[in-house]
Amino acid sequence: MTVEAGVRPQAGARDINRLLRPRSIAIVGASETPGSLGASVLANLVRNEFPGDIHLVNPKRETISGRPAVPSVDALPEGVDCAILAIPRVAVLDTMRQLAARKAGAAIIFAAGFAEGGEQGMADQQEIGRIAHEAGIVVEGPNCLGSVNYLDRIPLTFIDTDIKAPSPGGVGIVSQSGAMAAVLAVMLESRTLDLTYSVSTGNEAGSGVEDYVEFMIADEKTRIIAMIVEQFRDPARFLALMEKANAAGKLVVLLHPGKSSAARESAATHTGAMAGDYKLMRAKVERAGVVVAETLEELGDITEIAARCPALPSGGTAVLGESGALKALTLDLAEELELALPTLDDGNAPALRAALPEFVPVSNPLDLTAQGLVDPDMYYRTLAALFEDDRVGTIFAGIIQTNPATIGIKLPPFLKAVRELKATKPVIFGGVDEGADVPADWIEQLRAEGIPYFPTTERALRAIRRLSAAGARDASKTDAAPASVPALVSEKGVVPEYKAKALLAPLGISFPKGQFAATVEDAIAAAEAIGGPVVMKAQAAALSHKSDAGGVALNLVGADAIRAAWDKMFADVQRYDASIILDGVLIEAMGARGLELIVGAKNDPQWGPVILAGFGGVTAEILQDVRLLSPDMTKEAIVAELGKLKQEALLHGYRGSPALDVGAVAELISQVGRLLRGEPRIQELDLNPVVVYPEGQGAIALDALMLVD
Amino acid sequence: MTVEAGVRPQAGARDINRLLRPRSIAIVGASETPGSLGASVLANLVRNEFPGDIHLVNPKRETISGRPAVPSVDALPEGVDCAILAIPRVAVLDTMRQLAARKAGAAIIFAAGFAEGGEQGMADQQEIGRIAHEAGIVVEGPNCLGSVNYLDRIPLTFIDTDIKAPSPGGVGIVSQSGAMAAVLAVMLESRTLDLTYSVSTGNEAGSGVEDYVEFMIADEKTRIIAMIVEQFRDPARFLALMEKANAAGKLVVLLHPGKSSAARESAATHTGAMAGDYKLMRAKVERAGVVVAETLEELGDITEIAARCPALPSGGTAVLGESGALKALTLDLAEELELALPTLDDGNAPALRAALPEFVPVSNPLDLTAQGLVDPDMYYRTLAALFEDDRVGTIFAGIIQTNPATIGIKLPPFLKAVRELKATKPVIFGGVDEGADVPADWIEQLRAEGIPYFPTTERALRAIRRLSAAGARDASKTDAAPASVPALVSEKGVVPEYKAKALLAPLGISFPKGQFAATVEDAIAAAEAIGGPVVMKAQAAALSHKSDAGGVALNLVGADAIRAAWDKMFADVQRYDASIILDGVLIEAMGARGLELIVGAKNDPQWGPVILAGFGGVTAEILQDVRLLSPDMTKEAIVAELGKLKQEALLHGYRGSPALDVGAVAELISQVGRLLRGEPRIQELDLNPVVVYPEGQGAIALDALMLVD
Repeated sequence: MTVEAGVRPQAGARDINRLLRPRSIAIVGASETPGSLGASVLANLVRNEFPGDIHLVNPKRETISGRPAVPSVDALPEGVDCAILAIPRVAVLDTMRQLAARKAGAAIIFAAGFAEGGEQGMADQQEIGRIAHEAGIVVEGPNCLGSVNYLDRIPLTFIDTDIKAPSPGGVGIVSQSGAMAAVLAVMLESRTLDLTYSVSTGNEAGSGVEDYVEFMIADEKTRIIAMIVEQFRDPARFLALMEKANAAGKLVVLLHPGKSSAARESAATHTGAMAGDYKLMRAKVERAGVVVAETLEELGDITEIAARCPALPSGGTAVLGESGALKALTLDLAEELELALPTLDDGNAPALRAALPEFVPVSNPLDLTAQGLVDPDMYYRTLAALFEDDRVGTIFAGIIQTNPATIGIKLPPFLKAVRELKATKPVIFGGVDEGADVPADWIEQLRAEGIPYFPTTERALRAIRRLSAAGARDASKTDAAPASVPALVSEKGVVPEYKAKALLAPLGISFPKGQFAATVEDAIAAAEAIGGPVVMKAQAAALSHKSDAGGVALNLVGADAIRAAWDKMFADVQRYDASIILDGVLIEAMGARGLELIVGAKNDPQWGPVILAGFGGVTAEILQDVRLLSPDMTKEAIVAELGKLKQEALLHGYRGSPALDVGAVAELISQVGRLLRGEPRIQELDLNPVVVYPEGQGAIALDALMLVD
Repeated sequence: MTVEAGVRPQAGARDINRLLRPRSIAIVGASETPGSLGASVLANLVRNEFPGDIHLVNPKRETISGRPAVPSVDALPEGVDCAILAIPRVAVLDTMRQLAARKAGAAIIFAAGFAEGGEQGMADQQEIGRIAHEAGIVVEGPNCLGSVNYLDRIPLTFIDTDIKAPSPGGVGIVSQSGAMAAVLAVMLESRTLDLTYSVSTGNEAGSGVEDYVEFMIADEKTRIIAMIVEQFRDPARFLALMEKANAAGKLVVLLHPGKSSAARESAATHTGAMAGDYKLMRAKVERAGVVVAETLEELGDITEIAARCPALPSGGTAVLGESGALKALTLDLAEELELALPTLDDGNAPALRAALPEFVPVSNPLDLTAQGLVDPDMYYRTLAALFEDDRVGTIFAGIIQTNPATIGIKLPPFLKAVRELKATKPVIFGGVDEGADVPADWIEQLRAEGIPYFPTTERALRAIRRLSAAGARDASKTDAAPASVPALVSEKGVVPEYKAKALLAPLGISFPKGQFAATVEDAIAAAEAIGGPVVMKAQAAALSHKSDAGGVALNLVGADAIRAAWDKMFADVQRYDASIILDGVLIEAMGARGLELIVGAKNDPQWGPVILAGFGGVTAEILQDVRLLSPDMTKEAIVAELGKLKQEALLHGYRGSPALDVGAVAELISQVGRLLRGEPRIQELDLNPVVVYPEGQGAIALDALMLVD
């Protein structure tokens, strides 16, 4: 099932306050029955000492747990901030209408069976959205687990919640899945991280993840937003919000299933939302500054580092270890993760050299051996030297913990260094021997100094890698202005090659020397003007697969050859599809051979314009050796991205072949980017192949396909 | 530094008993000084109530901790089982000579600075090996942390060791790195797994990992051997031992750094052993039945499953989950891990359908929703249905634990199912919300039923994947006999192409129709006999790069063309290298075009014969799109391996091209395998390219290069 949730009005920050920071709450479906939703919601509010009014609605009871109850929503006072609907699905619509009449500010709907439950469910969900929009009610859900406000100790959920003290501020959780919001809260709390809000948006009938992200960006106590999203319903708004998040210095960490097609289908079934293009989503959100986690483990790990470290991991990582085998294992993992470990050696790191005993060579990873047990101050000296080393952006210590006595020798000099030297570089601790008996107090002392504690070194290194990669990303924007192509105004649908090339050439995109010919005589004249052997290509908007139709003739020399090719081509195309009437042919110089790339572009209706560039041909197709690029990237950033292609070695003079003109390819891509930004009507553009020549000799697009809205 | 450790005599199982199960122990360098090696060793023996004689050697003290001491090794009684050398490096050699004179059975040397410490260290280490060999002493180390015998409570190490009770049997640890042996012991013990022996072999002067593996295979209480090896010093013996291990039903799990070249260099530096070829090692040990872990995490995880589950994970995995988002995340991870999840749905799984409420569709992964909290018996019913389903080989439950109350509702029906239904399928538990407060008793109850408990689902799935892949590996051996090529006896060094082809053709390997010609007249006659256009290729053992030397001429038709090509070729080769005297030329039919593969083979001096097969050309070289195959594989196994090539789609009719004759390639590889097994003198063989034609049309090797010892 791939049904799309209906129009969802945008919830403003003011509304969200009535939902997440209510002064009064109504529980519709309040109950005394242990385990029932209504009883659990009430118990949570009581346990956490909600200071505002609690109104209970139950048609059958006058009191519930000793509190007065009213028989229906109609009997509620006007303007209750937040109504929690602990009622069956069938009663939801009527209740929403009543809440609208009573001018409630917000509603939380737990019940499932709406957009994910078939056509009637979808219609009902749209009706919820409509009512909410008209009445200005912010709706969370349906099919959600509610929210928790940790700052003010307000649980708005039926999940057992016990907030010991108001949170000082830290991580906000936004998840479409209610189960995952709860899971993430447990995970982060077990790491003693402070939460601000946890929100599960469910089916998003009246508010979506974007609304809560906006709220949390504005909330000064939320510094990090950890998200689990299966489908962004308003990508453009989310991307715009990320600009605000970046400006406010807030980090967004995202886990988004859907790398596999099986996962995308599954998400469509259970959320009632269309499955999107994962790669496009990822390219766009990463460009916007989001750190993407690939597993729940990573989501927790990245969030912990971001929450604790005064500065985020960036630059090269120095690894402080105590074993040669761990050093080798770390080198293997670093290569796999593409985590940069700057080279440190006896020659280039005098401060580190001075910190270590003679028999310990300077290297990265370091292998301090078991010497630290005899000379614990070595940890202090080593950290001090690493703090001062500009090549090192992040310090990771993979420590053998053994038992309370052993770790008790190693940690004091470690903590002392961090405390005394007030390093601004992130220091991260990973246990080598997972499960070792490490007293909780030591872990808390590390955390108090902003040092995340990881149970294994692999977990730590994977998380450091994600944050380092995000930090290293080139977020700069080109200053090349959007390019408009006035002549495009008269085009619609498929633009034939000769017209597309004529439109694109003024941007500086190179095509083979060529000329459109509407008659065979024109074609002969064009070939003469061009000189040398030429290509003839049939031209018509309706002819998208020229080769299949016999619409391409190569290596033509002389008038006779042109004439023969012309006759054959018109006959072949006619035979291929009698409805196609050719505009004429394009006569072009034969291009010299070179490496073939593809450059494609599209303007995604949800995510906006994107460029795809990479290797062409069957092999590349199987290997998907392409990169997705943003149209506002600088040329330097484009070159860097091309450098991440699997076969990038082919670009740089592999095995004696000359280095290729990657700069020219980047220039071409940059021009395509200007075009996409200037002409949003261009839905698709394919330059395939783009032939790249040796450095200084440029790149030429042999074909051009354009689709205009 | 890449020095190779010297000859290491093989230690027999009898000797190892004197080392690991000593009745008497001498501590050379015994001491009272807290923290000293000698004192720590003694304290360990006392703490663990070693029942045999303990002899202390110290030149300066008559008593140590109230026990009598002798001044030198010479004063020891004859025939002490195990001497522990807690002495500086400089005193080791003399002590070894004295121990030989006193007929000691075994010696453990902690001191470092031997093979890893330069030329003198290497010489001294070889001397240790020589003394040990002559005197029949089994030496552990130098540069090791000793051993622990958990079965008999005998610690032979300076690491604090407290064995509460004799182990009932379980996992043996063998590690070259002492630190990693200790780390692994902590990791496995924290998972409440029982250990048998833990051995660190260090520099392996007198005994190596192979010796301890042999000992543990013979030891009936060791069921699993967990290894960390940086360099096998006797690969052939290890592979032979694996046959015994398989026959005895014992599993070996191996972590071996060295995937990256940086790690191989690092290992060479710190162990004093040459870095080997990781991929070759891995292909060989996996073929022999070893399960290879890629990280310490995985080593622990795989070992736990192997130690606990009555049967190992195999076949398809059913995932029992409680959240749609987790389902999608698991689908993503399963695709990445290539973990097979059999399709289960409402139609094909009636038992499962009957076990679930109507609104929960049957799928894999299952999404049971939060319904289990209301209807906990659903876990029992679901497991019961999965136990009976033959498509399911392994069951993984990814459970949201939340808190003691919640997990306390979910686990009883879960445990009840496993207890009552006595399933032989492995059931593995992974927490979705890492860090949730799960009472230790629940975890122990799971473990008692043979259910490993994992803190995260990702960890569990990664480990299941490794074991499932190992179980799915085709271990069968071809019944094709080794092939001998009698004429090979007269060859040595590089065999020129025409001879190599003549030697290989009788095996059934196809080459283009061709003929050797020593004169131009012979060449003309050969071309006529072959018919059609021909290739001429210069022939001489010394000419290994024909094309570079102008030694290949294509597409020759007629006597004049042959004559002209002959003259030019001889002149070009002369100009290329005047010392090369051609035997003549090979005249061959031009081969039809097809997909180009490469098939190479070598007889590795350490690991034995191996075949490399995959895609040819520059792209494939960059992508390393090849597989390493064993020469004794069946054709079916070879076809399966070729199916794992990254570009394998090209073999099966990609985009309208015909499916290719993969069977013929497998047949060719199988013949190369017979040859390698029959003719160990063949050091290298390259068939490059091997051109593959559509199904039924075979595969032809265009070139053949052979190197004979």
